[in-house]
Amino acid sequence: MIKFASRMDNLKGSAIREILKVATMPGMISFAGGLPAPELFPVEEITQAAVAVLKENGTKALQYGETPGYEPLRVQIAERMLAKNNIKTDADHILITSGSQQGLDFSGRVFLNPDDVVIIESPSYLGAINAFKASEPKFVSIPTDKDGMIMSELEKVLATNDRVRMIYVIPDFQNPSGRTWPLERRKAFMELVNKYEVPVIEDNPYGELRYKGEYLPALKSMDTKGLVVYLGTFSKILAPGYRLGWVCASDEILAKYNFMAQAASLQPSTISAMEVSKFIDMFDLDAHVDRIREVYGHRCKFMVECMSKYFPEEAVFTDPDGGLFTWVELPDYIDTAEMAPKCLEKNVAYVPGIGFFPYGEKKNCMRLNYSCMKDEKIEEGISILGGVMKDYLKK
Amino acid sequence: MIKFASRMDNLKGSAIREILKVATMPGMISFAGGLPAPELFPVEEITQAAVAVLKENGTKALQYGETPGYEPLRVQIAERMLAKNNIKTDADHILITSGSQQGLDFSGRVFLNPDDVVIIESPSYLGAINAFKASEPKFVSIPTDKDGMIMSELEKVLATNDRVRMIYVIPDFQNPSGRTWPLERRKAFMELVNKYEVPVIEDNPYGELRYKGEYLPALKSMDTKGLVVYLGTFSKILAPGYRLGWVCASDEILAKYNFMAQAASLQPSTISAMEVSKFIDMFDLDAHVDRIREVYGHRCKFMVECMSKYFPEEAVFTDPDGGLFTWVELPDYIDTAEMAPKCLEKNVAYVPGIGFFPYGEKKNCMRLNYSCMKDEKIEEGISILGGVMKDYLKK
Repeated sequence: MIKFASRMDNLKGSAIREILKVATMPGMISFAGGLPAPELFPVEEITQAAVAVLKENGTKALQYGETPGYEPLRVQIAERMLAKNNIKTDADHILITSGSQQGLDFSGRVFLNPDDVVIIESPSYLGAINAFKASEPKFVSIPTDKDGMIMSELEKVLATNDRVRMIYVIPDFQNPSGRTWPLERRKAFMELVNKYEVPVIEDNPYGELRYKGEYLPALKSMDTKGLVVYLGTFSKILAPGYRLGWVCASDEILAKYNFMAQAASLQPSTISAMEVSKFIDMFDLDAHVDRIREVYGHRCKFMVECMSKYFPEEAVFTDPDGGLFTWVELPDYIDTAEMAPKCLEKNVAYVPGIGFFPYGEKKNCMRLNYSCMKDEKIEEGISILGGVMKDYLKK
Repeated sequence: MIKFASRMDNLKGSAIREILKVATMPGMISFAGGLPAPELFPVEEITQAAVAVLKENGTKALQYGETPGYEPLRVQIAERMLAKNNIKTDADHILITSGSQQGLDFSGRVFLNPDDVVIIESPSYLGAINAFKASEPKFVSIPTDKDGMIMSELEKVLATNDRVRMIYVIPDFQNPSGRTWPLERRKAFMELVNKYEVPVIEDNPYGELRYKGEYLPALKSMDTKGLVVYLGTFSKILAPGYRLGWVCASDEILAKYNFMAQAASLQPSTISAMEVSKFIDMFDLDAHVDRIREVYGHRCKFMVECMSKYFPEEAVFTDPDGGLFTWVELPDYIDTAEMAPKCLEKNVAYVPGIGFFPYGEKKNCMRLNYSCMKDEKIEEGISILGGVMKDYLKK
């Protein structure tokens, strides 16, 4: 019998994966994935960028490159982080990764020994939970309110648990809850982080996708002690098919991520990084993001309207200021994983909330994505979901 | 003070990395990297394939895809493995990775707990050693002769060490030694593997690049118990800039690699996989590989001739049947890491052998790459190297 490493006991096939598979079948109304709207991909412009890269610099694009990734793209990323997140950094403090999922994986591997503690929001992103599980940590989930992580609860843990090695948060349009931390919460968080000197992973895949309210500074922009590791990605503002994300961190920490990257995959794709860099040179990425924001902002608002109209009043949901997701909480006695197949039978898919809790603590929630379905599908799907929910309510 | 995971103690900056950085400077004669010759990249054909993919199927190329990678490419890989390596498999038994380095990393993570034993050849590929170190194993190095790993030595370890969890080998044109295991050695190896039922990682990045002698069947083609994990890559037969490799394994093992991939990076690049698939559809990859073989085969032969001419007789080197590297062994008292800066001063770079031994056991070897330097540079560089060697010999 083949013996596998103990970490593999934590990494298993999930019911969610099965739902995502079914969700892509033709005719399905899918609120399940976190897919960008494909009709917004700038295919023509990307083609021009690809041709330009291969024509001007083809042999470099096809060759091995540096572990941190194509330098001109790292310069552009640093410029963008200053413009969008008020983060002052430079190319030497950025490592390009294979999507921000690889940044999550590296984070677990850089900071966590087995049984070390990682603090997360409750709920938190299932992809991050899964990545960290490979390092066999213990998860401590901090309760949240509509403004994100509750600071008094966080301090209780930091003050009493000496195995805490990192804190993972998504302050902007959190996946799955759709919530955003206000400025005061961010300041209070950074005070605690500085007091206890714990590394923070700030995951910000959706920060540029704000539909209402004011942009807020990233935690990284308030980081005076070099404790915040910032994860960004081109997946939501350009295209996930390239698998290009990045890590921005202080010297000491980024050096560890670079060693990890060297061992894990040598380097990110040279050609992909050069194409994205060329796209940014040739075209207006900001204008493209504006177009995405307009479409997603409309769909977000429309889904919220539909939920108000079709969901029973027992269903409590987020009205997000940005991002890709809303989060629905049903009465405690409803198990959304058990309800999912009933909805799939009616051609509507969502992600049951259980996967967003590391120990499956809550069964009565669901995550809904609004970015890749058109209005009529949103209305039809939400009305079907509302109908099923009503069947599940105790009369 | 920030606490890092214990695995990070194993992953550090190396002198080799510094040499590789210097090696790419203009004017340098570099035998250091394992870079394909850039003048052979089929830039025009790849441009056509890229344009075709974006035109015909752009929104799919830019979107998220499946964890195992673009299915039509997996079908093509399976066909190629049958044609080139006599391995009967199919798309469901293949996982596309971010270069075969990611396959190496996954291998360590799937099979190795801290202090478990991984068996390797002595010497072995430094990138694999580095990848495995992240899983904190113990390495047991098996002595080799000109025909590769010595089977009686392997059996001694298998018979007595109950912590062995995997065996890592490169039977074709090994990196760094340039040696190839003959058929009898392969058969004897598989008998031992079947007897002791240990998983094997067969790394075969260079198998198609044979310059003389007969192609030999892959270990995977003789695998009757589903114990061999085969790693392949497009880096040497097409272009490393795409970062596309693959893992082929039996159901039980591949399922673990898929879970690992989901946690580590979700999926390989959609657009890169589609472009390589389209290239294979539109053009003749075999003809392209023939062209590479012709050029590298010539350079290999020429470097061997130059070594015979310029190296002192105390330098013992491999005359490879294929691949990218030859390996030079000098008298025990010469430290090639100490000698490297002297050669860099004269604009010649190589990789000191020490990195190919997990505990730095041998200091008197060097790896030389012949694929990316033209004849006049090979002759000039080898003559300079020979001169420095002679200065280091005890008179």
